[in-house]
Amino acid sequence: MKDKKKYAVGVDLGGTNIKIGLVSPGGNISKRLSINTEAEEGPLKVIENIKNGIHAILSKAEIEVEGIGIGCPGTVNPAKGIIENPPNLTGWNKINLGRAVSMEFEKDVYLENDANAAAIGEMIFGNGIKLNSFIMVTLGTGVGGGIVIKRRIYRGEFGAAGEIGHISINYKGPKCNCGSYGCIEAYAGSNYMKERIRNELKKNRNSLLLKLINNDYNLISPKKIKDAADKGDKFSRLFIIDLGEKLGAAFASLTNVLNIGTYIVGGGVAGFGRPLFDSIRKSLKSRVMAQNKNHIKIVAAKLKNDAGIKGASALVFHGF
Amino acid sequence: MKDKKKYAVGVDLGGTNIKIGLVSPGGNISKRLSINTEAEEGPLKVIENIKNGIHAILSKAEIEVEGIGIGCPGTVNPAKGIIENPPNLTGWNKINLGRAVSMEFEKDVYLENDANAAAIGEMIFGNGIKLNSFIMVTLGTGVGGGIVIKRRIYRGEFGAAGEIGHISINYKGPKCNCGSYGCIEAYAGSNYMKERIRNELKKNRNSLLLKLINNDYNLISPKKIKDAADKGDKFSRLFIIDLGEKLGAAFASLTNVLNIGTYIVGGGVAGFGRPLFDSIRKSLKSRVMAQNKNHIKIVAAKLKNDAGIKGASALVFHGF
Repeated sequence: MKDKKKYAVGVDLGGTNIKIGLVSPGGNISKRLSINTEAEEGPLKVIENIKNGIHAILSKAEIEVEGIGIGCPGTVNPAKGIIENPPNLTGWNKINLGRAVSMEFEKDVYLENDANAAAIGEMIFGNGIKLNSFIMVTLGTGVGGGIVIKRRIYRGEFGAAGEIGHISINYKGPKCNCGSYGCIEAYAGSNYMKERIRNELKKNRNSLLLKLINNDYNLISPKKIKDAADKGDKFSRLFIIDLGEKLGAAFASLTNVLNIGTYIVGGGVAGFGRPLFDSIRKSLKSRVMAQNKNHIKIVAAKLKNDAGIKGASALVFHGF
Repeated sequence: MKDKKKYAVGVDLGGTNIKIGLVSPGGNISKRLSINTEAEEGPLKVIENIKNGIHAILSKAEIEVEGIGIGCPGTVNPAKGIIENPPNLTGWNKINLGRAVSMEFEKDVYLENDANAAAIGEMIFGNGIKLNSFIMVTLGTGVGGGIVIKRRIYRGEFGAAGEIGHISINYKGPKCNCGSYGCIEAYAGSNYMKERIRNELKKNRNSLLLKLINNDYNLISPKKIKDAADKGDKFSRLFIIDLGEKLGAAFASLTNVLNIGTYIVGGGVAGFGRPLFDSIRKSLKSRVMAQNKNHIKIVAAKLKNDAGIKGASALVFHGF
């Protein structure tokens, strides 16, 4: 008799790397690898790389595999396995990646947008295990979002829902790469943030942060800013508080609309840690409508560096 | 054998008046009345007034009634028939209005928040008949919202969802009566708008609008502003365009999150008509993310003055 709890393969398809892992039902990665995406070679090459990677993970594995989960950028139709115009992957247009992989391995393949996969990862393995509804926010280069309502991803009319990075907090604010203005991503996206700090540091030459990065702006990171703030640097402390206030403002609009007050926040920028979380919470609580004030909860994501692989494998355990 | 298509009673419970109508399955009001709410007398008196009104509507009616629908302000639990802290109704706290009415008439009673009832009204009788998902916006004293996803109202965690009037477009904008800043209601709510026009007219003494209202600021209305704009008044025209741009900015955040691009817009402020709708559409299209741009549709509500009664009666025809 076979063990009822089979393993899953999780594939985190990014513009630079494809990360693949063999994941236990408990969320442990027992085997992993990372290969170059070779995005510039076009979709056929990328799909070949994905297949080769999965073969490598499965070879010599004495574990039975339930299915393969793939998290990828762009708009995804999970039911059909189709990925559409993924950013950072050139020449993809509309491709049935799900079928390509399932035919190769004769396994069920679960395809999902990476922000939604992160949400499902937290729901299955992380801090969303006991939550019915929550909003997953991934603070990285972009600000990604996954909306979980009654333990299902909310997808909208054609699978493009959850773009909470493109809630505008200032309709006359800075231009966002989406074409609009004042989107929260245009403040909290890591590149926008670095640019802003670079400019503001020019007016704050005595900030401790400049010492911590040895005057090398390329070394600016959430961790460095947090370290400076922890050591009493006023500039860094105010920067984090300001960022939290802005995120809280975007979340308040969202909570008023969705009547969901629980946020799981992950990604590199979440490395600001407690000062950021406290500031988000304060801003959000002060801004949401009265009926939502007692239902606000901001928690850090549990899945850290392996959120991509674990989120993708969670798709298999979650099912459609 | 009874006619399968019975009538419904629709009750529009407001802070000043209770409007009640007998509505056919096709959405025609065959009998109607309006009585004072007497909100200041407390909930027992208001409930008595509702019952008396329904009795009056039903007396001598030779039509069979399927059920009673009630649209009311505040947070509502439709399944339980409970209304919670309705604004403009003092001393209500938490009352099972549904049971009080159903026991009196031995009919099914369908209770719903008024903004959601307006959405269901458009879905059953109005411009939402053929729509799967849309967002209903009621522009009045407040900016109300009802989110319809796959022909069901989206309610959120405890029935307080859809507050699209409290999407902020400027986190440092004017104070809103909800306590937050820059909510779209703080720009588009009719009282905020009148106040703004009053102030701006001081700097635009030669605006035709001042003539149309005989210098009496109490006469400011969307209709007057539209009339002035139609007659070439630049101030009025720019005011409407600016309002549309702001509404479009709020809607863009919402469409990016919900991946729903269809809006039905009603309420008194929608009386600005086509110039406003054109401006909303232009702003929204220019601001939403690429994948949503070809899915934008802004239509006027079909139910006008009787939206309250018809929306409430539509609850009966829609069912739970």
